[in-house]
Amino acid sequence: VTRTAGSPGRHMAAEIAEQPQVWRRLLVAGADAIAAAAARIAQAAPRFVLFVGRGSSDHAALYAKYLVEIAHGLPAGLVSPSTMTVYGARPALRDVLYVAVSQSGGSPDLVRSVEVARQQGALTVAVTNNADSALAAAAEIHVDALAGWERSVVATKSYTAELLALYLLFDHARGGDGRHAAVLPDLGERVLACDIGNVVQRYRFAQRLIITGRGYSYPTACEAALKLMETCYLSAQAFSGADLLHGPLAAVDAEVPVLAIVSGGAGGQAMLPVLTRLAERNADVVGVGSGPALKRLASRITLPGKIPEDLAPLLEILPLQQLALRLAIARGDDPDKPRGLDKVTETL
Amino acid sequence: VTRTAGSPGRHMAAEIAEQPQVWRRLLVAGADAIAAAAARIAQAAPRFVLFVGRGSSDHAALYAKYLVEIAHGLPAGLVSPSTMTVYGARPALRDVLYVAVSQSGGSPDLVRSVEVARQQGALTVAVTNNADSALAAAAEIHVDALAGWERSVVATKSYTAELLALYLLFDHARGGDGRHAAVLPDLGERVLACDIGNVVQRYRFAQRLIITGRGYSYPTACEAALKLMETCYLSAQAFSGADLLHGPLAAVDAEVPVLAIVSGGAGGQAMLPVLTRLAERNADVVGVGSGPALKRLASRITLPGKIPEDLAPLLEILPLQQLALRLAIARGDDPDKPRGLDKVTETL
Repeated sequence: VTRTAGSPGRHMAAEIAEQPQVWRRLLVAGADAIAAAAARIAQAAPRFVLFVGRGSSDHAALYAKYLVEIAHGLPAGLVSPSTMTVYGARPALRDVLYVAVSQSGGSPDLVRSVEVARQQGALTVAVTNNADSALAAAAEIHVDALAGWERSVVATKSYTAELLALYLLFDHARGGDGRHAAVLPDLGERVLACDIGNVVQRYRFAQRLIITGRGYSYPTACEAALKLMETCYLSAQAFSGADLLHGPLAAVDAEVPVLAIVSGGAGGQAMLPVLTRLAERNADVVGVGSGPALKRLASRITLPGKIPEDLAPLLEILPLQQLALRLAIARGDDPDKPRGLDKVTETL
Repeated sequence: VTRTAGSPGRHMAAEIAEQPQVWRRLLVAGADAIAAAAARIAQAAPRFVLFVGRGSSDHAALYAKYLVEIAHGLPAGLVSPSTMTVYGARPALRDVLYVAVSQSGGSPDLVRSVEVARQQGALTVAVTNNADSALAAAAEIHVDALAGWERSVVATKSYTAELLALYLLFDHARGGDGRHAAVLPDLGERVLACDIGNVVQRYRFAQRLIITGRGYSYPTACEAALKLMETCYLSAQAFSGADLLHGPLAAVDAEVPVLAIVSGGAGGQAMLPVLTRLAERNADVVGVGSGPALKRLASRITLPGKIPEDLAPLLEILPLQQLALRLAIARGDDPDKPRGLDKVTETL
């Protein structure tokens, strides 16, 4: 591992801490542009919504897919860009809203898929953290995540900024004014102050980890797993609570730690049978969230405050980002210098 | 581990070997029913296709999603059943083809999601291995995978039967006659005769494994990972070749074995930059497939014969099913008795 001159993970730490401030900026300075973009979407009245993204932005897209399916009552899907870029598919996309999500806006496969989607009749939207990117230029509508320059290779503030931008976009598109999100910055400060030291200690020598959540918390499980892979090089696997029971549960025993995300809403309640099955397998489960089901777990990170379940993903990921940061440092790695990764990943 | 009186894994071994015979049955005895179902789909002329499944059947659904996006040029998505069952979503599904895939046809969340989809205006199809199941009854159209009774808890023959049923369904729906699939049974016999002993040896003490493939081979990577989790309790992680480069690559080093699926088509060709990046990380890569890019790898399982890329997933999974079976036995586990699993998993 190459060491930096400064303290390890200082960029990642600064950007984790910066998130409440990024959200305030998006809620205030970003509001008009997002409302205008949402008005164009509402006018187009799409019947299907497709999302495309890679890495953390794929998890933001998965979050938005739940929003669209549940709150908008529209069918939605996640596109595999390879269908268009590798196989040359030219799908019929009239009445389709096509939303690409990318921090850098720079991966050629995403840019190409938006170009194809636009040619094929979709209304195209790019949600990026770079207004000057090729992706922002390719789409009819650009939504700026306004997270500011991200120095850390491992995305943190751009991820939650994408979540919030997508939430606001779809809330406005169905006539909302984003008011439920107003409490997020203050709550974020409180969540960031939670003590996670015991959990960092507990996983000091873990090589494998399973993270599970249902519904809105499932993208959080995916994103937390990616952070732990990128910074700690763990085999961190994310499963929806239901999918975990359909096979992967066999791989769980007392030697494989489990992080369970238990929100205060219906998804958290639906984790109850999952927690029961994990207990039967003598799994070591640490809970994260604010749901009442958390009380069943001896080890937990309880998040303060109350928030609608569809906004909880912005808060639930915070202690998990901190875990990835602090565990990497505890293990002697520098999370600002993840092995084998560059800030902008280009795939075709 | 509970031991059976008979030899460990005998049910799984028998069902792996039975697959070419299952495919012959489906190609002959199943053809008329599938053609009739396809005609109803063609007449409905859906504009959007949604799939739903759990476990292995989710991977069969993912395969069919690629078929629909690439060969049919229709937008498609994988549904999270929880949106309907946990959150009560009632999406607008006119012009939508809704395809549920399930070996048992017994999981309540899938049945409920098909009932909701039907109420909401979708044309509903159930692909199951149980014509008497609640799922088969709930859907307007039932397609029988005709795999026969599956004794093994770990699905093998029902998985490839679902793949073939879905292939034939969509091939007929766009005017084909399934002729390209006719070579599969004979080729399957040849692939099952391939020697994988060296790979079983190589992974005898592995605790982590990464499996990667692009396009049509990505569902194969997902299914192989699930088999290895279910039988060997490994942390087996599947990534599309492109997704692997967007973060998880950091977790790869010389200590984490990688299985790369390299088909003979465009998806296999698109694995070339992935293999280059894996080599830079000094990864231990074993290749599986029939693509020319395989020759770059010192260790490989080369599949005999030629097959269109969209049918290769039926063959590529065979040596990986055998690997899961034989590795479990080599490690002292009985793949017919996976820990913590039942044949029919019921989630809500």
